[in-house]
Amino acid sequence: MKTLLKNARILKMPKDEIIFGDLLVEGNKIAKIGENLSVNADKVIDCDGNLLMPGFKNVHTHTAMVFARSASDDLVLHDWLFDCIFPMEAKFQPGDIYHLTKLGILEYLRGGVTTAFDMYFTPPEIIKASEDMGFRTCILATSDKESIAQLEYNLKTYNQPDSLISYKLGIHAEYTTSLERMKDIADLANRYKIPVYLHISEGEQEVKDCVGRYGTTPLKFLDSLGMFNYGGGGFHCVYFTDEEIEIAKKRNFKIITCPCSNLKLASGIAPIAKYQEAGLEIGIGTDGAGSNNALDMFREMYLVSTLQKVINKNAAITDGFDVLKMATYNGANIIGLEEANCLEVGKLADIIMIDLKNPSMQPINNISKNIVYSGSKDCVKMTMINGEIRYMDGKYYINEDVAAIMAKAQEVTDRLKAK
Amino acid sequence: MKTLLKNARILKMPKDEIIFGDLLVEGNKIAKIGENLSVNADKVIDCDGNLLMPGFKNVHTHTAMVFARSASDDLVLHDWLFDCIFPMEAKFQPGDIYHLTKLGILEYLRGGVTTAFDMYFTPPEIIKASEDMGFRTCILATSDKESIAQLEYNLKTYNQPDSLISYKLGIHAEYTTSLERMKDIADLANRYKIPVYLHISEGEQEVKDCVGRYGTTPLKFLDSLGMFNYGGGGFHCVYFTDEEIEIAKKRNFKIITCPCSNLKLASGIAPIAKYQEAGLEIGIGTDGAGSNNALDMFREMYLVSTLQKVINKNAAITDGFDVLKMATYNGANIIGLEEANCLEVGKLADIIMIDLKNPSMQPINNISKNIVYSGSKDCVKMTMINGEIRYMDGKYYINEDVAAIMAKAQEVTDRLKAK
Repeated sequence: MKTLLKNARILKMPKDEIIFGDLLVEGNKIAKIGENLSVNADKVIDCDGNLLMPGFKNVHTHTAMVFARSASDDLVLHDWLFDCIFPMEAKFQPGDIYHLTKLGILEYLRGGVTTAFDMYFTPPEIIKASEDMGFRTCILATSDKESIAQLEYNLKTYNQPDSLISYKLGIHAEYTTSLERMKDIADLANRYKIPVYLHISEGEQEVKDCVGRYGTTPLKFLDSLGMFNYGGGGFHCVYFTDEEIEIAKKRNFKIITCPCSNLKLASGIAPIAKYQEAGLEIGIGTDGAGSNNALDMFREMYLVSTLQKVINKNAAITDGFDVLKMATYNGANIIGLEEANCLEVGKLADIIMIDLKNPSMQPINNISKNIVYSGSKDCVKMTMINGEIRYMDGKYYINEDVAAIMAKAQEVTDRLKAK
Repeated sequence: MKTLLKNARILKMPKDEIIFGDLLVEGNKIAKIGENLSVNADKVIDCDGNLLMPGFKNVHTHTAMVFARSASDDLVLHDWLFDCIFPMEAKFQPGDIYHLTKLGILEYLRGGVTTAFDMYFTPPEIIKASEDMGFRTCILATSDKESIAQLEYNLKTYNQPDSLISYKLGIHAEYTTSLERMKDIADLANRYKIPVYLHISEGEQEVKDCVGRYGTTPLKFLDSLGMFNYGGGGFHCVYFTDEEIEIAKKRNFKIITCPCSNLKLASGIAPIAKYQEAGLEIGIGTDGAGSNNALDMFREMYLVSTLQKVINKNAAITDGFDVLKMATYNGANIIGLEEANCLEVGKLADIIMIDLKNPSMQPINNISKNIVYSGSKDCVKMTMINGEIRYMDGKYYINEDVAAIMAKAQEVTDRLKAK
C-alpha cells in the first residue's frame, strides 16, 4: 500500500525548519520526501498546504482511567485517591480495561497522539485494545504482582520488531514499592542493561516521606540501588533537588512532565526551565483522565512553556519550539522509539496533519510556535499510525464502531461508580 | 423564523442543573423550553442528547490583534511591546482592523464564543466586522483621541435596543492616561451613572509606578477620582491589595481575569480564589492573540480553576462549575448583557451546543465540570447568535467567504510585518 501526501508543508523535526513538498508512505514507513514526487500510489491526498509533522508522543498516561474523568473533580489528593479512584478501581472486572482503553485511544487519535507510554493494570488488555484500534503503545507494567520471571518473559515477548507494542521496565513509585522489589527491579535492569521508569517526586509529602524512610530524596535513594545505571525516566519530577539534577544528568535520566495533572491535583509546578538549563532530556505526558482531565497534548505543551515563564518571571524562557520538540522528537527517544521520532525516509509513518486553515492557525507567522501557543485538538486534520490513516476530518478509520466503544465505556463506568 | 432544537440536554445556568427537552427559538429569542414541544418550526434540529448552554462571553479581548499571533512569541514584555506590537500597529491603514476582526470572529464562532467585549482602535471598523459576521460585540472604546463629546455621542448611538452592538465607557489604563482625561472620564461616568472598565494591576511594575506617581495603588487612586461610583470592571487584576479588594466590593467593581495572557507574558497569577472568597463577581477574557495566543475560552476556564488549586496548594478550591458560570452567566452580567446570560424564555438566543459524543466528553459523569476540565474547541458542535446558527459541524453560516477572510487577514499581516 502506497499513500502519497501531496502539497504539504513538512516539519520533519528535530530542526525548526519547514519545507514544502510531497511525502510518500509505503507500507508502514516513510519511503520518499521531495518536491513533486511522481509515484503511482494507491491513495493520493492533497494536503493543500497544510502541515505534516511527527505525531505527539504522550509519554505518561493511564489511558483506561477515562472512567474517572469528572467523577472526581475538585477534591484534595487524599479524598480523590481514597474516596474515588481506589474504590472504583477495586471493582474492575476482566475486559474493563480493554474497553476503557479504547475510549482513551479515540481521544488520542482525535488529538494527534500517535503513541502512548501507558502504565496501568492488565497489560494484555491494553495491548489488545491498542492492536484492535491500530494504535501504538509502549507498555509500562509496574504491578508488584508479576514475578521477576514474568517481567523477563514480558520483556522478550512484547518487544518484537514490526509491532505496535513495546514494553518497558518500571515500578509504580518508591512510596508504593517494597525495598526488596526495588532491589529486584534494579538487578533486572542491570542484567538486561535497560532503563527503569517510575512516578517520582510528584508531591512534597512524598519526598518528605522518602527522606523519613530512607534518609534521602527519592532519585538519590533509588540511584543508590543501582536502578538507573542504564538510564530511566521519571513522571512528574516536580521536586528534584540540585543534587538530583546532577544524578539525572549523570544517569541520562529523562524528565517526563505532566503540567495539567500537577496543577489540578495541586502538586506543584516542575522547574522545567532549570532542567533545560541542566541539559536534561524532557518529554511530556497527560497523566490519566482522572487527574487532568483531558488527554490533550496541546494543553500540556502550552503549559510546559507558559508556566515556566510565570514562575521565572521571564516571558522569554522555555521557547515554544523546544516544547514542540519535547512533545514529539524527545518523547519518542525517551521510550526508545527513535524509529518514529521524526519524518525521514525509513522512519515509521506516524504522521499528523495540522489544519493551517483553522482560524487559530491564522495568519501564518510562525507555524511551529503557533501550534504550541494557539493549537488545540480541532487543528488536527489527520492522524496516521504505522502508515494507516486512523482519523481524518472528523471521521475515524478503525475496525471498531465508535458509538459501541463509547456505550461500552459508559456501561463499565456506571458499574464502577455504583455503590 | 422558528428553529426547534429537539432532544437536548439543557444547562440553563446559573444553576448546575441539566434538564432534558426541547428549546424553541423564535426570531432572536428563546420562545419555549419544555419536553416534547409540538411546534411548527421552519427548522428542526435533533440534538441527539447533546448539550445546549449559553454561549461563552469573552469579556476581555483585542480581537483584531490576531495579526500578532506568533509574530511575537518568547519575548519579554518590553521587547514584545516596543519591538513587535507597537511598530506593527503603527502601520495600520483604514480597513485593516475590519479585516483582522473578522478573522478573530471566525475563531470565536468555532469555539462557542457568542459575545466579545472588544477593546481596540477604530470602533466603527469593529462594529462593521461584527455586524457583517452576525456576531455580538460590546465595544470598549478607550482612545484618548476621542473627545468627551464624541464619547457621549457614541454612548447614545451604539447602545440601541435589538442591536448586536453595545458600547461601554473605559480608559486604556492608569499608566497610559493623563490625570485630566481620567478626571473627565470619571465625570462622564457620574453624569451618566455608568461603570468604567480598564486594564488594571496587570504587572508588578505598573502598580509600583502608580504608587510613585500618585502615592497609592491604581484601584485606590482611581476610585478616589470617583471613577467607580457606578461600578466598573478591571482586566487582569493580578495585584490587588486587600484594601483594593474592599474597594472593589464596595463599588461592585468586577474582576475580569485572563490567565493565559498573564502566564505567557509572565505577569503573574491573579488571586481568583481570594476574590471569590471576598464575593467579587468574576468574568473571563482571552486578551488579544498577540499575548495569549488563542481566543479559546476552554483553555482560560481550565486555568482559572487549576492555577488557583496549585497556588493555594488545595485541589478543592475554585470549583469547576463556578468557573463555567464565570465564562457565561457572570460574563454577560459584567457587560450589562443580562438578556443573554442564561437560557430562559425571553432571553436572547445566544446558544451553543456541546458535542457530548466527543471522546473527551465521555463517559458522562459530571457534564458541566467536564466542559471546564476536559473541554476544548472541538467539543463545540454549534454556535447560535441572536437566533441564527453561525457555525455548525465544521461549517460556517455567515454572509462572508471564509477563505477570503483568511487571505485578507494574511495580506494585512504581511504588510504590518514588512520592514
